[in-house]
Amino acid sequence: MEHNLQHTISLLTRTPVALNALLRDLPETWTVRNEGESTWSAFDVVRHLIHGERTDWMPRARIVLQFGETQTFEPFDRWGHMREYQGMLLGQLLDEFARLRSENLSELRALKLRREDLERRGRHPALGVVTLSELLATWAVHDLTHLHQISRVMAHQYREAVGPWSGYLGVLQCAGHSSP
Amino acid sequence: MEHNLQHTISLLTRTPVALNALLRDLPETWTVRNEGESTWSAFDVVRHLIHGERTDWMPRARIVLQFGETQTFEPFDRWGHMREYQGMLLGQLLDEFARLRSENLSELRALKLRREDLERRGRHPALGVVTLSELLATWAVHDLTHLHQISRVMAHQYREAVGPWSGYLGVLQCAGHSSP
Repeated sequence: MEHNLQHTISLLTRTPVALNALLRDLPETWTVRNEGESTWSAFDVVRHLIHGERTDWMPRARIVLQFGETQTFEPFDRWGHMREYQGMLLGQLLDEFARLRSENLSELRALKLRREDLERRGRHPALGVVTLSELLATWAVHDLTHLHQISRVMAHQYREAVGPWSGYLGVLQCAGHSSP
Repeated sequence: MEHNLQHTISLLTRTPVALNALLRDLPETWTVRNEGESTWSAFDVVRHLIHGERTDWMPRARIVLQFGETQTFEPFDRWGHMREYQGMLLGQLLDEFARLRSENLSELRALKLRREDLERRGRHPALGVVTLSELLATWAVHDLTHLHQISRVMAHQYREAVGPWSGYLGVLQCAGHSSP
């Protein structure tokens, strides 16, 4: 299926609302536990999403539009969020994510991108040439990757509690699929 | 981690709200497409969740409390939803899921289950002896399994659109983990 900017924006708009509905005021059993050493909790994922809003998606889109392939993107620091947003409560993080996402989508809409803009090319430090269309589609699928991860991390907390049903529950068979 | 009934109810309460926030009025690109033949769209998953509210979780809990191990649960029909809820719009299905879940949680709370109630045993047609505690924990993880599935099915629609980023997006590496 081809990338459709309006469909991408529709999804990007909903992620903060969906995460808010799922996570706000949920017992910490679900939100601060992870899957073991060097893994992320739902809390960590929200911090990572905030970090992406600040340093990844729209900053890279601006680089493509201003410099094309001549300026390589800054590498995104997948652990960058660990140094920031210390001491914030989950409710505050959810608010911050919603605020930044809303600002970024306002900026994106204001660009009034045309089909030829979406075909503009930038340069990723590892992947090489990428298009603005691919960057924006990735922003949406990145949300879904982390919704996928959050559901898995939460399910992990009840791995023993479900007893013999564990074999029927697909999410408990998922070992995660991201590179470290 | 041990099963905690209040934590289970907290999660079960949020699933309809989170799915509503994610899916309502989203373009059909995201909600009615699946991953190929004999797979489910987000739309199908919501129908399946409704079917579970009607025929699986609380009906089985009642059987455990009334008959213990002497009455085997009816097998749950994983494709049962395909015969029902025909012609309903996604918004109507989300409303119906929220309504049934709310009713079921009211009934669950009204039971005022004590620790010894949660240890009561029932008989699953394939798994054999299970406890009420395991049944209720499974209800919560079943929600998470389908949130996991929905995020994967939606991401699949942009598999090509993300271009070279596909290797970085864990959700696109997930082949699903449930038995057919």
